[in-house]
Amino acid sequence: MTVGTLRVVVVGGGASGMSAASRVKRLLPKADVKVFERSGFVSYAPCGIPYLLGGVVGSLDKLVHYSVDFFRERRGIDVHVHASVEDAGKDYVEVSEGGRSKRYDWDVLVLATGARPVVPPIPGVELEGVLTLRNLEDGAKAKEMLARAERVGVVGGGYIGLEVAENLVRLGKKVLMFEMLPHIMPTLDHDVAKRVERELVEYGVELHLSEKVVEFGGGERVSRVVTEKGSYDVDLVFMAVGVRPDTALAERLGLKLGETRAVWTDSRMRTSLENVYAVGDVAETVNLVTGKRDWIPLAPAANKMGFVAGSNIAGMDIEFPGVVGTAITKAFGLEIGRTGLSEAQAKRLDYDVVSVSISAKTRAGYYPEPKAIKVKLVAEAESGRLLGAQVVGYEGVLARINTVAALLPWGATVRDLFFADLAYAPPFAPVWDPLVVAARVLMKKLH
Amino acid sequence: MTVGTLRVVVVGGGASGMSAASRVKRLLPKADVKVFERSGFVSYAPCGIPYLLGGVVGSLDKLVHYSVDFFRERRGIDVHVHASVEDAGKDYVEVSEGGRSKRYDWDVLVLATGARPVVPPIPGVELEGVLTLRNLEDGAKAKEMLARAERVGVVGGGYIGLEVAENLVRLGKKVLMFEMLPHIMPTLDHDVAKRVERELVEYGVELHLSEKVVEFGGGERVSRVVTEKGSYDVDLVFMAVGVRPDTALAERLGLKLGETRAVWTDSRMRTSLENVYAVGDVAETVNLVTGKRDWIPLAPAANKMGFVAGSNIAGMDIEFPGVVGTAITKAFGLEIGRTGLSEAQAKRLDYDVVSVSISAKTRAGYYPEPKAIKVKLVAEAESGRLLGAQVVGYEGVLARINTVAALLPWGATVRDLFFADLAYAPPFAPVWDPLVVAARVLMKKLH
Repeated sequence: MTVGTLRVVVVGGGASGMSAASRVKRLLPKADVKVFERSGFVSYAPCGIPYLLGGVVGSLDKLVHYSVDFFRERRGIDVHVHASVEDAGKDYVEVSEGGRSKRYDWDVLVLATGARPVVPPIPGVELEGVLTLRNLEDGAKAKEMLARAERVGVVGGGYIGLEVAENLVRLGKKVLMFEMLPHIMPTLDHDVAKRVERELVEYGVELHLSEKVVEFGGGERVSRVVTEKGSYDVDLVFMAVGVRPDTALAERLGLKLGETRAVWTDSRMRTSLENVYAVGDVAETVNLVTGKRDWIPLAPAANKMGFVAGSNIAGMDIEFPGVVGTAITKAFGLEIGRTGLSEAQAKRLDYDVVSVSISAKTRAGYYPEPKAIKVKLVAEAESGRLLGAQVVGYEGVLARINTVAALLPWGATVRDLFFADLAYAPPFAPVWDPLVVAARVLMKKLH
Repeated sequence: MTVGTLRVVVVGGGASGMSAASRVKRLLPKADVKVFERSGFVSYAPCGIPYLLGGVVGSLDKLVHYSVDFFRERRGIDVHVHASVEDAGKDYVEVSEGGRSKRYDWDVLVLATGARPVVPPIPGVELEGVLTLRNLEDGAKAKEMLARAERVGVVGGGYIGLEVAENLVRLGKKVLMFEMLPHIMPTLDHDVAKRVERELVEYGVELHLSEKVVEFGGGERVSRVVTEKGSYDVDLVFMAVGVRPDTALAERLGLKLGETRAVWTDSRMRTSLENVYAVGDVAETVNLVTGKRDWIPLAPAANKMGFVAGSNIAGMDIEFPGVVGTAITKAFGLEIGRTGLSEAQAKRLDYDVVSVSISAKTRAGYYPEPKAIKVKLVAEAESGRLLGAQVVGYEGVLARINTVAALLPWGATVRDLFFADLAYAPPFAPVWDPLVVAARVLMKKLH
């Protein structure tokens, strides 16, 4: 550290980067905090891009939480957009901006380079009209191209694929979804994913499972998806087969990568190199269910990692404990949530697993319009310790998923869940909450 | 215990009594299980009665989960309705049924006599048209009398008062609510209760706070509520000033009552007398936040207490850990939840308290129709341990209340809540969940 002004350079202006920058500046108003962002926007919400496509979100600017000017003028952060960090050393970064390369020195570096979409080397993947969605510019371009598309391929049945599909159907497009695995949503178990697939099919999505894409055909622009099983006419293709941590700069700096191939960090978000932090989708953390290193790139953790790194840079001492892997999404009417380990994941990790799936209603039976909900619980057979939950239903999924997510880090058992003092009133839940019903049934398998 | 068939007598056919009876019979199919219920129904849902009044629930029979015949024929439980237990000794009960008194011997007795509405000795309280709601017959009678009422008084601003008021407004009645305290909802803090009051007033409820009812006027039928401040014409009055454990029979048996005046029980739901259990609204339990004895009569705990007692009677060994005091209700559009201790409760118990109230939205800002939600957190200043939460809002209250309810028994701190891995997606929550925002603000007060 210098004796003068602390110079903090943040690479990446997404959620975690801006969170770290804001936190440093709030605690140390005199610090010189610079953010370099490759795209034209900072503090944007990539999770909202599918909804931008479908018109649920009316315009691009709504996805920007705070403008560049806001950060510059109100928070005193020196934000550089269209600024690409090309190289870094132990006390500097090389930034390409405005057609020139510039060098900036730092006392503390925060890597918030995020994740990038995986683009498998499928012949034709470089054709015009084969799109990925990473930043707002991608979203704007996709929205424009959609105006001239009727049949749209979605490659990959994960969260992004699902949300894109829903929004394309909303636009009246014919959607063909291709998933090479036997079921969509790889972080859900087969039985739960099947329930989600039924919802997609009901809304007109043409689902191709266990069908690997081997080629994209067309002239200048894509016009065909070719799989091992057939060939399908399309006007546009969204690639949504997953993301990987963008570790290019980390590797140039010689940072240690973890077993997950994301940047290794300790609980204070420090990397293997002194005064270098990593936060957000590029950083590895700990899974509080397994106790093992894990990489689950999601926005809430990214924001908190930024908060933790910023706090520590400013001289506080605060630790990011880790994640349990909680996620929620919606496919048409169906809400889909998961937390902890799925049964398949737990078995792969050699847990001795018991599980249960129950169907219930979200309200007292006599209260109007109770909705269907399905709860799957996964636990360790010997100890009864909860390992995870999956919930799908037409309302109330958030409540059930967050309840289990809150319990998981404490080593809570199925019995603890059964006895949790959950809220009841006729409009909100049956007197035996669906979670409690599932726990009651699963307890029997533990005796 | 006899060497022959185990004879179990359950007094009270509500949720907890039928839960205990069913559990015994499931585990010990040969046991002789008798249930004596004063009213004409068992396994009914008193929580649904307000909604019956308003027509949300179409008919009385919908509030009966299972019929008497179901329990007799399908579960083999010897159910006696219109059967009032008048006395009990160490191995028998005296039951008044069909105009005669009969004696039944037991090896195990389960007291599930519930709670009864408090009827303060206000002059005129015995007039026709001053109603309480305890069982389904009360609900049916009230519904009938409402047909000829325009202006209805509701005395008491707790859960039942609120739900009754909502349903009366739904019927187009003019509702006058009288609360002797300065705010309604005594288990909420003043600032949170004020938010609820605004909702009531907005929907046309005439709210009289700090106004004690001193007389009910009228001829044969009530026509006037007289308070310390004024006199108000009414056609009907609902008394909803609270409930007390119905310990009459317990006292005849000489059972120890707890400091809360409910029946003392251990964690296995045993009373001070051998082979006598108490469950549901008549039974005292433990508050897992304070570690002290408490009495919070709510249906989910009642059902679980029945489950625990039934299991133990049948030879298992299972403990009811206690409650944290979680409740939810709805007043018109507003959802209202609370768990643990309010700030006022915590202060009365001499905790050194910090608290925070924040206003937030239930969805990502750019997603359509985000709803307002307000979160209040209460914590212990020194340790940062969470003591309770209150949440009011137009959606998503169940999720936030249950999350905190799940954390409270573990001694979780504000920081633990901040780092809880809660679900995020634009339609369900902002990336900083309202709970996490509240925790973040409250953390500052702990440093």
